[in-house]
Amino acid sequence: MSFRVRRLPEREIGDRGSLLAILDEGIVCHAAYVDGGRPVVIPTLYVRDHDRLLLHGSNSMGLARAVRGGSPISAAVTLLDGLVVARSGFHSSANYRSVVVHGTGSLLSGEARSQALRTVVERLIPGRSADLRPSTAAEEGQTAVIALGLDTMTGKRREGGPKDDPGDLGSGVWAGVIPIEMVAGPPAPADDLEPSLDMPEYLARWPATRSPEGRA
Amino acid sequence: MSFRVRRLPEREIGDRGSLLAILDEGIVCHAAYVDGGRPVVIPTLYVRDHDRLLLHGSNSMGLARAVRGGSPISAAVTLLDGLVVARSGFHSSANYRSVVVHGTGSLLSGEARSQALRTVVERLIPGRSADLRPSTAAEEGQTAVIALGLDTMTGKRREGGPKDDPGDLGSGVWAGVIPIEMVAGPPAPADDLEPSLDMPEYLARWPATRSPEGRA
Repeated sequence: MSFRVRRLPEREIGDRGSLLAILDEGIVCHAAYVDGGRPVVIPTLYVRDHDRLLLHGSNSMGLARAVRGGSPISAAVTLLDGLVVARSGFHSSANYRSVVVHGTGSLLSGEARSQALRTVVERLIPGRSADLRPSTAAEEGQTAVIALGLDTMTGKRREGGPKDDPGDLGSGVWAGVIPIEMVAGPPAPADDLEPSLDMPEYLARWPATRSPEGRA
Repeated sequence: MSFRVRRLPEREIGDRGSLLAILDEGIVCHAAYVDGGRPVVIPTLYVRDHDRLLLHGSNSMGLARAVRGGSPISAAVTLLDGLVVARSGFHSSANYRSVVVHGTGSLLSGEARSQALRTVVERLIPGRSADLRPSTAAEEGQTAVIALGLDTMTGKRREGGPKDDPGDLGSGVWAGVIPIEMVAGPPAPADDLEPSLDMPEYLARWPATRSPEGRA
């Protein structure tokens, strides 16, 4: 991605609504921090909550230490939509949507962390939080939730078919797009699940329930 | 991910073959570099080539500048396999496989870059490189290929069902796993494709052709 210089089919995403929609669709972000001058990138679960991301991790991880120390972090969400099969290597590409957020996060604690943990569960699986017992203080003490404000973010997107050189159009080489998407299968019950328990409807409908339309 | 401290169902991946298999399955990596003391993370297409990753980008991007300046980088590949729907928020989690690579990359040029670009195309879409004309020097001059050695890498994986607290087992709450995978749809022809051209068989079979078994 971001590898076309001429006739860029990639576009900066200018409107905040489109950036937020990408953040709302993703499940995993990649967060980077600096440790002893070196960059470190790790995957974490996250959700968007209003004007911030909530990154879910453990208190022992380097990312949490960096945030606690006031160091800036960066988090990227990328949705891969396809491979662009062009008539030349140069124009071969990917369709995707991505957002990169920069900022100085904060480690939540106390009631702010409790609320954030419920938000993480509820945004990942809408309907779920009502089914779960409250977390204990011991559990919450072992969990890090990093809030990262959405003040500084950029997005990029590529969509559509190949943009081939005119000279390559008659070359007899097939061109097009391989569409790619994340697909959820039917939820599988845990081995230790009581057989009498039916799967809740909010799980059967996932991930449609994560979109504004699907919540209805 | 990486957010269980007690009774960790996440595991470090110890064997190099499993790490390489994850790198071979991914399509997008997230690469981090340090820019003025701040971490920056961006998505890029990549492939594994023997004992290195080849990251595909533009010469103008910050990542290429960092590598040119000899700065260390970090690259992560994450495959999301599911959401673990546990009986408590604390044990809710994700199933995934991830690899993080650290090192000082190098920007390829000349014949090394030409070869690497062919490798990128061929590993992403096996069979494709034979169909494409050679890239021109002008095209290659606009493209950055970063080689990142696989000397320092770590991997983590979580798999299987929820690991609930014994006290939560009789709570009457459904538990299980929502499986998630990346799925490719049928390749869609470009708008400007000559109607007489049939789709190559290596595209119809993608992504099976990317695995060692699928190449047969």
